[in-house]
Amino acid sequence: MKICRTVEEFRRARPELGKLALVPTMGAFHEGHLSLMKKGKEVADSVAISIFVNPLQFAPTDDLANYPRQEEEDFAMAESVGVDAIFAPETASFTQGIKTTVSVGGVSRLWEGEHRPGHFDGVATIVSKLFLVTQPDIAIFGQKDFQQCAVIAQMVEDLNFPIQLQFEPTMREESGLAMSSRNEYFTPDQKAKACHLHDTLMSASTQIKESDQSISDILLSSQRSLTDHNFAPEYFAYVDPVTLEPKEHRISNGRLIVAARFHGVRLIDNIGVFL
Amino acid sequence: MKICRTVEEFRRARPELGKLALVPTMGAFHEGHLSLMKKGKEVADSVAISIFVNPLQFAPTDDLANYPRQEEEDFAMAESVGVDAIFAPETASFTQGIKTTVSVGGVSRLWEGEHRPGHFDGVATIVSKLFLVTQPDIAIFGQKDFQQCAVIAQMVEDLNFPIQLQFEPTMREESGLAMSSRNEYFTPDQKAKACHLHDTLMSASTQIKESDQSISDILLSSQRSLTDHNFAPEYFAYVDPVTLEPKEHRISNGRLIVAARFHGVRLIDNIGVFL
Repeated sequence: MKICRTVEEFRRARPELGKLALVPTMGAFHEGHLSLMKKGKEVADSVAISIFVNPLQFAPTDDLANYPRQEEEDFAMAESVGVDAIFAPETASFTQGIKTTVSVGGVSRLWEGEHRPGHFDGVATIVSKLFLVTQPDIAIFGQKDFQQCAVIAQMVEDLNFPIQLQFEPTMREESGLAMSSRNEYFTPDQKAKACHLHDTLMSASTQIKESDQSISDILLSSQRSLTDHNFAPEYFAYVDPVTLEPKEHRISNGRLIVAARFHGVRLIDNIGVFL
Repeated sequence: MKICRTVEEFRRARPELGKLALVPTMGAFHEGHLSLMKKGKEVADSVAISIFVNPLQFAPTDDLANYPRQEEEDFAMAESVGVDAIFAPETASFTQGIKTTVSVGGVSRLWEGEHRPGHFDGVATIVSKLFLVTQPDIAIFGQKDFQQCAVIAQMVEDLNFPIQLQFEPTMREESGLAMSSRNEYFTPDQKAKACHLHDTLMSASTQIKESDQSISDILLSSQRSLTDHNFAPEYFAYVDPVTLEPKEHRISNGRLIVAARFHGVRLIDNIGVFL
């Protein structure tokens, strides 16, 4: 496994990698990340991952400084699933003095875009850079960040990146809690209770599928259930899976998306509701 | 010479082109364009040009609708200098519904950026698309659009485009008038008089090199000279060649840049002042 600290190092390594799948990450790996890397091995000759905690996608009030970092463990985990190359640039050298922003209108303005202004500009800019450095044939992202997938899909289409995108299902704990590096912030008891976020999504999905309650009533009672369980919801919405626009009536392939704080930790999750 | 109307067509043609130089254009060719294409032949295996009158870089009040279009002549001229491939997409299919913007801070905010709001966002977005479609090894631009060169250099560095940039000197009429597709708008008499723009640049350069007048006095008298000759100057400035920031004192490699309207036609020009 080749570890590249600079753009030039990765470029030198690139020709030997053949048809390449890239998994962009911020490190702090769990089974969710590893499943994306394994998927990469299935669909390409080689898998590269990037590890970069992107300062551009964190607001000053976000958890950038505390975001979990465990590079040696990450490298070992990547190697264990057969990753061929890692691009892990120094933060300073990769983003210092950067004046260019890639900004995706429409889908990036809603939900996460509203609650984390500038977040998706940071994501789109860094993902563009990672694509241009690593030149993958395929890029793989987890559906846990569902809106991020939609933003990147729009960007790849708009700018004609010659890259095929694959979005993979969210990996979950046995409790249903979506795997996330931020789960590390919880005590074991908090983590056990955090699964109520997924329970609420599942219950709303069942209500959409099986009841004749209105969408707005279902969303309202979901939010209330979260509040009753000590979550502070930022949004709980039923949306179009491509535009992320809210839907007041049932559609065949809607998505339930949620963001909520629990014991100070901001969690997001989503599930598909297929009628 | 291969003519490609769609992204897919160009992508299919790309492998045969080997080491590729791209000359992005808006068509309406003159000797300036042809000199860039010839340069491309010198530095790469193949030369591709793009012809795309980019609606994103024109303001509603600009001359988009009237911008000269002469596709058949352009194709013949390109072929005559050995161009290997042309990417000439339909406007609608190439930019319709696009929601992503590439925006270069700093250098793109000054001068043309002030007088043509959104112009450089349009340029950076389309040039990104053209780079991603054509995947050139080298891209060649004319220094006539000096600030555009600086904006693209910043973008290529910031986003890690794996492309080497070459900026070529402005081609001029015998009178000194910079060649431009917009010169077509002039009557012969107006065109003859339009060379005063270049005369004024040359005279300011001489004053910077040989007199001890202050920069601000030199710029002021240059503007006055333009006004006296029926030009309506938008700016006449002495700037750093990378950041485009105005310089109040002499530097070793300053640039004089100017934009002015003459008989309703907006002209830009620039020259290097090397001390």
